[in-house]
Amino acid sequence: MTDLWKITETIFDPKRLPHYETALTQGNGYLGTRGTFDEYYPGEQRTTFVHGVFDDVPVVFTHLVNFPDWTQLDISLVGERFSLAEGKLLDYHRELDLRSALLTRKVRWESPLGRVSKLEFFRYPSLADPHLMSQMVLITPENYEGEILITSRLDAGTDTMRYQQWQWLEQGVAGDTIYLRMQTKTTKIEAALAQKMLVNGSPDFKKDLPNITKMPSVSAAVLGQKGEQIRFEYFTTIYTSRDCDNPKDQALQCLAGLQNDPGEGLFEANQQAWQKEWERCDILVEGDDEAQLALRFSIYHLLIAAPRHDERVNIGAKTLSGYGYHGHAFWDTEIFMLPFFTFTRPEIAKNLLSYRYHNLPGAREKALEGGFQGAQFPWESAGDGREVTPTWVPDPADRKSLIRIWTGDIEIHISSDIAFALVQYWRLSGDDDFMVQRGAEVILDSAKFWASRLEWNPQTRQYHLSDVIGPDEYHDHVDDNAYTNYLTRWHLHTAVALAEWLKSHDAQAASHLFAQLSINEQTLSNWLTMADQVFCPLENQEGLIEQFAGYFERTNGLAADFDPRTESIQAILGIEGANASQILKQPDIMMLMYMLPELFDQETIQANYDYYTPRTDLTFGSSLGPSIQAIMATRLGSQADAYENFMRAARADIEDVRGNAGDGIHGASAGGLWQAAVFGFGGLRIDQDRWHIEPHLPAHWQRLRFKFMWRGQEQLVDIRSQEKKS
Amino acid sequence: MTDLWKITETIFDPKRLPHYETALTQGNGYLGTRGTFDEYYPGEQRTTFVHGVFDDVPVVFTHLVNFPDWTQLDISLVGERFSLAEGKLLDYHRELDLRSALLTRKVRWESPLGRVSKLEFFRYPSLADPHLMSQMVLITPENYEGEILITSRLDAGTDTMRYQQWQWLEQGVAGDTIYLRMQTKTTKIEAALAQKMLVNGSPDFKKDLPNITKMPSVSAAVLGQKGEQIRFEYFTTIYTSRDCDNPKDQALQCLAGLQNDPGEGLFEANQQAWQKEWERCDILVEGDDEAQLALRFSIYHLLIAAPRHDERVNIGAKTLSGYGYHGHAFWDTEIFMLPFFTFTRPEIAKNLLSYRYHNLPGAREKALEGGFQGAQFPWESAGDGREVTPTWVPDPADRKSLIRIWTGDIEIHISSDIAFALVQYWRLSGDDDFMVQRGAEVILDSAKFWASRLEWNPQTRQYHLSDVIGPDEYHDHVDDNAYTNYLTRWHLHTAVALAEWLKSHDAQAASHLFAQLSINEQTLSNWLTMADQVFCPLENQEGLIEQFAGYFERTNGLAADFDPRTESIQAILGIEGANASQILKQPDIMMLMYMLPELFDQETIQANYDYYTPRTDLTFGSSLGPSIQAIMATRLGSQADAYENFMRAARADIEDVRGNAGDGIHGASAGGLWQAAVFGFGGLRIDQDRWHIEPHLPAHWQRLRFKFMWRGQEQLVDIRSQEKKS
Repeated sequence: MTDLWKITETIFDPKRLPHYETALTQGNGYLGTRGTFDEYYPGEQRTTFVHGVFDDVPVVFTHLVNFPDWTQLDISLVGERFSLAEGKLLDYHRELDLRSALLTRKVRWESPLGRVSKLEFFRYPSLADPHLMSQMVLITPENYEGEILITSRLDAGTDTMRYQQWQWLEQGVAGDTIYLRMQTKTTKIEAALAQKMLVNGSPDFKKDLPNITKMPSVSAAVLGQKGEQIRFEYFTTIYTSRDCDNPKDQALQCLAGLQNDPGEGLFEANQQAWQKEWERCDILVEGDDEAQLALRFSIYHLLIAAPRHDERVNIGAKTLSGYGYHGHAFWDTEIFMLPFFTFTRPEIAKNLLSYRYHNLPGAREKALEGGFQGAQFPWESAGDGREVTPTWVPDPADRKSLIRIWTGDIEIHISSDIAFALVQYWRLSGDDDFMVQRGAEVILDSAKFWASRLEWNPQTRQYHLSDVIGPDEYHDHVDDNAYTNYLTRWHLHTAVALAEWLKSHDAQAASHLFAQLSINEQTLSNWLTMADQVFCPLENQEGLIEQFAGYFERTNGLAADFDPRTESIQAILGIEGANASQILKQPDIMMLMYMLPELFDQETIQANYDYYTPRTDLTFGSSLGPSIQAIMATRLGSQADAYENFMRAARADIEDVRGNAGDGIHGASAGGLWQAAVFGFGGLRIDQDRWHIEPHLPAHWQRLRFKFMWRGQEQLVDIRSQEKKS
Repeated sequence: MTDLWKITETIFDPKRLPHYETALTQGNGYLGTRGTFDEYYPGEQRTTFVHGVFDDVPVVFTHLVNFPDWTQLDISLVGERFSLAEGKLLDYHRELDLRSALLTRKVRWESPLGRVSKLEFFRYPSLADPHLMSQMVLITPENYEGEILITSRLDAGTDTMRYQQWQWLEQGVAGDTIYLRMQTKTTKIEAALAQKMLVNGSPDFKKDLPNITKMPSVSAAVLGQKGEQIRFEYFTTIYTSRDCDNPKDQALQCLAGLQNDPGEGLFEANQQAWQKEWERCDILVEGDDEAQLALRFSIYHLLIAAPRHDERVNIGAKTLSGYGYHGHAFWDTEIFMLPFFTFTRPEIAKNLLSYRYHNLPGAREKALEGGFQGAQFPWESAGDGREVTPTWVPDPADRKSLIRIWTGDIEIHISSDIAFALVQYWRLSGDDDFMVQRGAEVILDSAKFWASRLEWNPQTRQYHLSDVIGPDEYHDHVDDNAYTNYLTRWHLHTAVALAEWLKSHDAQAASHLFAQLSINEQTLSNWLTMADQVFCPLENQEGLIEQFAGYFERTNGLAADFDPRTESIQAILGIEGANASQILKQPDIMMLMYMLPELFDQETIQANYDYYTPRTDLTFGSSLGPSIQAIMATRLGSQADAYENFMRAARADIEDVRGNAGDGIHGASAGGLWQAAVFGFGGLRIDQDRWHIEPHLPAHWQRLRFKFMWRGQEQLVDIRSQEKKS
């Protein structure tokens, strides 16, 4: 029977190393560490990323910095190096317990010279103290005795996608503790790590502390006896200059404060912290073990990426779990991941939304550079909130050519997406203070951007947005993308309503903010007029809304025409070919109807669903697609389609169905899966002042239970199959 | 008094670290290692490059790989880490002895806790066995006693300009020896390093061999006694899969074969090998110590970069001494460096020319890609002889923009430069065999390229070369660059003459080669006709040859108008601005007159010298300029100008007058300096079957003595000031 809280690996297959490294990533919202082995294995991608620690790199401008490695152990068994690349693997079991983020591996291994050992590895970054990580190794010689030498280190020689980002500053040994101080080369963020070892719970053992340049190390030599288990424990701390003034002192102090034989106590604190999270955030599914595990897996990955104590960081598209997208954040956060936090952990949602508030200067800079007013949020954002979308990347097909990436220039809908997420947070939390102090400035200043960006056409007597990219990125340089235009109209309307509310709710704050942003009554009135004049395409005679001007004139064709396949339709047709066809990377009109359902009747949604769905590359297009598709299918009563797409999202990283899980967790897919369960199958809908549910459980689900926060109060929804309405 | 064989540094100034690291680079033609300290120092660029070991990198395609570091030592003096960044430096003296490539550093250092030590460091890569490197450290505690712990390692964690190029394969300990096996990530070149330590000449000491992953280490702990010197020695070997089938075995075997206390014997062998080199290559100058030392310094850097046992490598523009130009080779080799080898070490010249022969496939590929026939040599060339000039590089002024580099597309004169160097080698050496077996194929196949590249203009009834870059790179996309056109004509004439010679000299080889290249009598006759019809601009009424079509219409101006300055005129005017002006990056017409002097009378040369010289950026333009300018000045009797430009070239790296010596030795400047001494001041000229000299020594030089090889015989030229003719 499957343990519905554990990701397990029972057969070691080196080809699946990158996938498992991603899936078994651990974290605590401060840092994320991929699930690499403690000992070196060829081809591994050993990374630790700490939120907000970016440094400049070529081509993609900035990258989360791979931290000095704190996890790696060299294990020498009577002179033989332990490595799964050699000897014989007799038993293998690895598991990640989602309840506590504890990664465990148990192996029995026969060395090339015939020595058999049992080795058990345990590792977790603490959720109770996000700067503290614990490692434990239990080694039992089964058929030999002799020296067991185990060496750990703080390794400054790590690279980020083969690129060096650190400047070494200092290292040393303080009593039993080794430490290392580094600084990022361009952003000048200082990091300090410290590490301490215990053997069988004690700091007194035959130890060596070789203070090798860039690699302070600690090693223990223990005489192994047949059948006797030896326990090695390591405790590591990380602090950066983003956290405190003196990271080195903090890191050393944290270890100095550890009790005698502290392992159990620390783990208990970690477990308790996790228990609190799961009490608020778990989704229970009965009748579908795969869906149950996938939901918990997705929630786990959102929770370990969630900044609990930092309102100046965002969650990258691949969380903190891999190199994909370099740690940059997109609309994936606001539209796909944030609802989970807004509904279950509003404190974290507030931190993430505050990131956008703090980075208004970068958004204003971007607007200015484009010749616009107000705040235009960057398509890709990192440490300082400036636009960091790469402009040119190497062409994999021709090493002398480059491909121009246009999203940073013209995928502009993100400014409305952020406003949308702010309003959703406000509605759920009722947090007026936040809206007054931070949210309003974001929404109003980006409304200013829209007002300056809209293009008046004297012929149509409407405002248009030409040369944009909508959610469906197979089509770039399009005019009047319906999603973008509708959201822009919504944004302007919302901004005016918000301004009115602000005036009545806090006149002083309103007048202060209006003055700061140079907004007056005339501005608001203009916005209202403009909003009403934004061209928002209506249904044609078939009931279809055209995704962008001229979409229906593109070459017709269905995604199924290309099946079976193992790559995206853009990879098959090429960038130009996909652009010329009607095939979508992800649902675009459906996205619009998901976000602004009040604007469309059921019949229109159905017609558009029927037209666009078979034209959407749901298998290898965007990983953002399936979850939204699933939700819209539930709303239309297409339960089979809904479940199929739900499972597509569910399997993205747990099964690696898209083949790229090694690059990191698909954060938007994880967040989308939660939405598909809660808003789709659970049918939770929020109106202005109340919530209600219209459940549509898959036929074989017996139960769906989840909680969420509504105006500061925890709400419990527990749907059992006999209660099913559909 | 200056030791005229030594580069010395007597005051340690951290700001000059990069410059000294380059200047004190050591090598033996197999590898080059920058003159970094043995112990870590912040900001160092610790590199070892091995000829021919390249791997792929972004943007610039391929880069010499920075090898695992073999030089670094951690020195712990009773627990205090030795570092010049801390404590007090009481005495400091560093010197590179050019006679033996021995780098020595002697310091007296007071630790933060007041311990005073004398430390003497010695290091050299052996010229007698190019795979063997020796290090020695003598440590004398002056006012304390206690444990002296010294740790060396083979460090796999090196990066190349912050980029990781290695895949770790294996490491271990074999008896007293540590070893490491690595492989380049893309080119799959395997490298093995091994290292062994002795203390006071013996392998028996209190040692530790921590086999840390990616960093096998060896450390020795010795009880230091007041006033007693301890001698630590390290011997390291490097082999790659380019050298042998089993690099690891070779590396281990090499160390296993060392005698007891081998230090002195190994150094003697190295010294003898160097003595032989200097006997053939030294230039003696009396009356000018600065020039004397600079000449030896230049010769030294050419000799340590010279591949003695490898005919599949070239010398990069910055030799093996720094990151500049990524190890790529340009025409700098054939036109600037090669004459030194052709005249003093023809065996090495032959290796370098063979590199071009072996890389004909890459040159044919380049011709084909451009739609041409035959062989077009790449502007930048590395491991496999394909074109590796970067096409786009980041714009330092705007992070979102890229600059297109055009040299790889249109700086085409290199194919003739290579033919020129081949003919020069042939004339000096009389090596008919080489010409038959290799040289002819290169010259004829690149003549085919020229025949296909020339553009017939029915109006002028001449052949033209439009859209090129000549030696003066401030002007790109020009038509009919005189240098390029004249050399093309020379190349076609030379090819036909060579073909005729080949037919009479070795009819079978000729017929075989003609068949292989699809050349027949008609081809040769066509080439002759075409050669005569290549547009080669003649003197205008002022006696000037126009550098390219329309040059005289560019904005007039003199380099002196921009003085004083600390950067190039292109940096001041911008790329477009420099292109629009008449200012040259380096002499272009002078270069032509230097290479084909028989085509121009003295009056024409003088007129062009007078016009172009004040328009040439000789201080911060190309480092290729001053030496050629010096030679032309001597020929015109402008001795002051000649000496000024000679010293500009002399000081490029020894004084860092251009401010970029840290990037690596200016190899072309070093080779140009030798040419300026021998062809300029020495006035050596080669005619078809004899040589003669027309010396023009600077007024204060009392003597100039040099040797060269003429048809297998060593020739000695010894000019004393009383013999001066001019």
